[in-house]
Amino acid sequence: MKDMPETQGLVIVGEAECERLVGRKDAFDAVEAVFGAMAKGDAWNFPVVREAIGYADALYGFKSGFDKAGKVLGVKSGGYWPGNMDKGLTNHQSTVFLFDPDTGQLAALVGGNYLTAVRTAASSAVSIAHLARKDAKVLGMVGAGHQSQFQLRAAAEQRDFEKVVAWNPHPEMLPKLGAVAEELGLPFEAVTQEQLGAQADVIITITSAFEPLLMKDWIKPGTHIACMGTDTKGKQEVDAALVAATTVFTDEVAQSISIGEAQHAIAEGSLTEDRITPIGAVINGAHPGRSSDDEITLFDGTGVGLQDLAVASVAARLAEEEGSAKRVSL
Amino acid sequence: MKDMPETQGLVIVGEAECERLVGRKDAFDAVEAVFGAMAKGDAWNFPVVREAIGYADALYGFKSGFDKAGKVLGVKSGGYWPGNMDKGLTNHQSTVFLFDPDTGQLAALVGGNYLTAVRTAASSAVSIAHLARKDAKVLGMVGAGHQSQFQLRAAAEQRDFEKVVAWNPHPEMLPKLGAVAEELGLPFEAVTQEQLGAQADVIITITSAFEPLLMKDWIKPGTHIACMGTDTKGKQEVDAALVAATTVFTDEVAQSISIGEAQHAIAEGSLTEDRITPIGAVINGAHPGRSSDDEITLFDGTGVGLQDLAVASVAARLAEEEGSAKRVSL
Repeated sequence: MKDMPETQGLVIVGEAECERLVGRKDAFDAVEAVFGAMAKGDAWNFPVVREAIGYADALYGFKSGFDKAGKVLGVKSGGYWPGNMDKGLTNHQSTVFLFDPDTGQLAALVGGNYLTAVRTAASSAVSIAHLARKDAKVLGMVGAGHQSQFQLRAAAEQRDFEKVVAWNPHPEMLPKLGAVAEELGLPFEAVTQEQLGAQADVIITITSAFEPLLMKDWIKPGTHIACMGTDTKGKQEVDAALVAATTVFTDEVAQSISIGEAQHAIAEGSLTEDRITPIGAVINGAHPGRSSDDEITLFDGTGVGLQDLAVASVAARLAEEEGSAKRVSL
Repeated sequence: MKDMPETQGLVIVGEAECERLVGRKDAFDAVEAVFGAMAKGDAWNFPVVREAIGYADALYGFKSGFDKAGKVLGVKSGGYWPGNMDKGLTNHQSTVFLFDPDTGQLAALVGGNYLTAVRTAASSAVSIAHLARKDAKVLGMVGAGHQSQFQLRAAAEQRDFEKVVAWNPHPEMLPKLGAVAEELGLPFEAVTQEQLGAQADVIITITSAFEPLLMKDWIKPGTHIACMGTDTKGKQEVDAALVAATTVFTDEVAQSISIGEAQHAIAEGSLTEDRITPIGAVINGAHPGRSSDDEITLFDGTGVGLQDLAVASVAARLAEEEGSAKRVSL
């Protein structure tokens, strides 16, 4: 009120600035660091709010958390508006709000659409960096939507891949992903699901599936699988028996067992929570990660609010350093 | 992303504009309308997130909801930073974010500190308007902090009060509240708790107490009590036996029984959930409200996110109408 000094102003970083400022390396480093902080107990996510609002078929909610190590406090809000595409807007709409953990004042407002894409790509990339065999040559992509292009670009930087094989429920979408592979200098081949399993050393699944797209028997020893699409109860990308047969890592165990890819193996009793390792433990050196060349590792990437806050914090910092940040007072 | 049109821009309404634009009548009308919408099932609050962040002794969280009738979707974020006062800032820090329910895009960013004060005052004022005896003459105030001044101003407009009696655990704070009463042309008297109960026709409790400050036997028939301070498990302003002896109304039944003033009577079994009426039912004419001049009515004002969204929506609309709203693009 009247006798209190005005806030110093908050930083506003729009979608275009995020896209210009936050590269894959920035996102990788931020996501890797916050996964490490989570595993040390220095950062944690708050309960997720997710609601069908009963209007415009929209799903709306919040992911929030606090990274005490990085002093990042905030929330990503937004959701899924299926009618947006017809209006020329993205169906997923996100905005990130960062607060000063010393005072609670709003510190930054950051567009979250592009950042959500890069942080999700960074997540599977971090898992590949820490869990895939060093000699992995073939990258398998299950899914060919908009997000798959982000996953492919980030994954391609983690190993000396020589080829990309891909499958998508709608094959007509594959050429767009193939164009990205070509741009990266990687041969691209559309294959069956079985062929994908037989060839790929690293697999990324990035779909909205509600049924298994890859079966246990199709996967060869030594593969690393990053399941990135399952973030809701009922969704599923791979065979529960496959999950149970792998060494499972995740961003957050609580989400993995409830809304992540592990939910089905957990539900049928073939996997127990104590067999799921936070990838941050590997990042921190507290867990050795892959134990042999034959082991199949699986990363259950459920998506946590702290990833969003981490990349948004990078965007705000870079915009401030560059002097391009808009500022307004509340 | 690049091929999508830019957002049309969001409205920014700062603390000073809120204070200038949103009057008590605006807040009263907005809060009354949304309480009515809640009782009809046209508006609902989402789960509350509330976390001790383990840093700066801060409590941080979110209250969110959707008013389908008023097309207001959003979240109030913020919390309590006990060290702020020493930095010349208010300890409570709030910001409200409103989203376009048709697209999910961020539509408005509104300072929430002043609005939280007026919406809390509007809440008890709405309860007085609908539940207090028409001939109420003496207003009793329990609590004399900053917020009590807002409650007093809003309450004073609901009945032809002739006097204010007040008690506060720290009596040295009473003169500030007395000055407000004087400004309103109302005689002001510091009294004991028993005297307050014996004199007051309407009582507002607005403290952070964890023990009963008013006992059942001190309250006279026909009184209306608005308990506004209890918003957390463990807090308590009045005797549980008093709550059980009254006709209980609330903003939201789910909060009333868990974190509101009714929690203690519910816990000891002297009150059941089905005896608590949403005040929206009275506003809508679905419940008669006060049934006799002797009945003691109690309003358990727990504070819901929809109140914040309602007043923030008014602030954004008035700022736009006036042409004073700042706009930025994301």
